Amino acid sequence: MNRREFTLAAGAAGLGALVSEAETRAEDVKTMGAAPTFVLLVYPKMVLQDLVGPLTVFNLTMGKTHLVWKDKSPVATDVGIAVTPTHTFDDCPRTADVLFVPGGLQGTTSLLEDEATLAFLRTAAEGARYVSSVCTGSLLLGAAGLLRGKKATSHWYVKNLLPLFGAIPTDGRVVEDRNVITAGGVTAGLDFGLTISARLRGEEWAKRSQLTLEYDPHPPFDGGTPEKAGEEITRDILKIRSPALLAAREAAQRAAARLRG
Amino acid sequence: MNRREFTLAAGAAGLGALVSEAETRAEDVKTMGAAPTFVLLVYPKMVLQDLVGPLTVFNLTMGKTHLVWKDKSPVATDVGIAVTPTHTFDDCPRTADVLFVPGGLQGTTSLLEDEATLAFLRTAAEGARYVSSVCTGSLLLGAAGLLRGKKATSHWYVKNLLPLFGAIPTDGRVVEDRNVITAGGVTAGLDFGLTISARLRGEEWAKRSQLTLEYDPHPPFDGGTPEKAGEEITRDILKIRSPALLAAREAAQRAAARLRG
Repeated sequence: MNRREFTLAAGAAGLGALVSEAETRAEDVKTMGAAPTFVLLVYPKMVLQDLVGPLTVFNLTMGKTHLVWKDKSPVATDVGIAVTPTHTFDDCPRTADVLFVPGGLQGTTSLLEDEATLAFLRTAAEGARYVSSVCTGSLLLGAAGLLRGKKATSHWYVKNLLPLFGAIPTDGRVVEDRNVITAGGVTAGLDFGLTISARLRGEEWAKRSQLTLEYDPHPPFDGGTPEKAGEEITRDILKIRSPALLAAREAAQRAAARLRG
Repeated sequence: MNRREFTLAAGAAGLGALVSEAETRAEDVKTMGAAPTFVLLVYPKMVLQDLVGPLTVFNLTMGKTHLVWKDKSPVATDVGIAVTPTHTFDDCPRTADVLFVPGGLQGTTSLLEDEATLAFLRTAAEGARYVSSVCTGSLLLGAAGLLRGKKATSHWYVKNLLPLFGAIPTDGRVVEDRNVITAGGVTAGLDFGLTISARLRGEEWAKRSQLTLEYDPHPPFDGGTPEKAGEEITRDILKIRSPALLAAREAAQRAAARLRG
C-alpha cells in the first residue's frame, strides 16, 4: 500500500467506524490518569514560537495549562501577537508537573536581574516535577540558581553563557539532567514538548500527538546548527545580533555575580 | 573543531567584532530590496501553531505582516491564546507577495460555506504573488475555487477531501503548483515558511533564518505520518476525530456543490 492508498483507506475506515464523542471520551478517561498541570512563564518580548510549540503539545495531553506573569496585562511578543496571561505569580498553582520557561533574547535579557521573576521561578521550581526551558529561557533558570551543577543547553548563540550560572553546557536538542530538561533554540520546543508528553502520558500518547501535529519535519535546507550552516552564515547572525548578545552577556555576568554574592 | 569548540569560537568572534546597529541595518537595507508583504487570514478555532510557524519565518524576512479577519475582535485558538487581527477584509492591502491561510479542523469546517470569507480569499488571491496554506487551510482555498486542477496537500486526515474541489492530492511536505503552495499538517508550517523565505529573499537569507530559529529537528519518535506511525495509532486518531472529520467532509461536500453550481 503506498502513502496515498493508506491515507485514503485509513480515512474511509475512520469515517466508517463512527463512535459517539461520549464513547471516545469515556475511553480516554479510562486510560488517562490525572490531568497533568503546566505552569508556563510568559513575558514581554519573548519569542512566541518558543511558547506555542510546547504549549500545543502540552494541550494535547488534555492537561491544564497556566500562562503566568506578574499581572494579567497582555505581553508583547516578537511577531506582533500579544499573549494575555491567565494567572499571576500570586494566584498560579503552587505545584505543577511542569514549570516551563520560553526564550527570546531581548526579553530574557531584561529579566536576568529581575528579582520578582527569579524569586517566582525558585518557588515554582520547588513545587514542580520537571523544571524546563526552550531557547534562551535556560538563562533565566540559571539566573534563578536552578542550573548549578546541571547539564543544560540553550540557543546556540548564548550557550556559552551557561557556565556563568554553574551549568554544564551539553550537546543535544533536548538535554535532561535529573528533573531539569532544557532544549535548544526556538524550534526545539516541538521536540521538547513531545519528550515531556512521553514522560507524563507515555510513548503511545506522545506518538499520537506527533501524528496529530504531522510532525515529520523536512527542512528545505540542512542548516539548523552552526556547524551545518557553516562559518559565514553563523558569523552573519552573530554580527547582526552582536549588540543584543553583548547586552545578554553583560546582564548574565551581573546576574551571576549577584547569585554568588 | 567539534560542535562546542565551534560554537564557543564563533561566539567569541561575533562578540569581539562588534558593529553598531546602525551599520548592520545599512548593510541589510543594501541587500534587501523591497520588503515583502504578507496577508495572513486568522479565524476562530484555528490552530495557533499553524499560524505562528510561518509567521515567525515571515517576520524574519523583515517584511510587513497583516493578520486579517472580518473585524478586529480577537479570535480564539486551540491553545487558549486569542489573536487580535491587525486588519479587516476591507482595510487590508489589495496586493501582497503572499496570501496565507492556516488550518484548524473545527475552525476551517465552520468557514467552508462562509461566503464572506471565500469571497475575500478569491479577491486577495487575485492580488497575491503566492497563494498558500498550511494544514486544513487548503480546504478553504479549495472551497474558494482556488485549487481547481492544482496539485495540493493538506493535513493527512483531510487530504482525501481535496478532489471535491478539483485539486490533485499530492505527496510532499510542501507542494508547489505554479503560484499555489500548500503544506501538510500543523508543523509543516516551518518547512513551508522557509520555502517561502527562499523564494522571496533567496536561499542565503532563508538559511540565516533557519539557523536563527535553530531549526535542526530531532523528533523523539519517527511517527509523523500515518505510514510511519502505523495503522493502530492512525486509527486511534481517526476514531477520536471522527465526529469532526465527518462534519468536515459534509461541509466540504456542500461547499463543492455550491462551487459547481
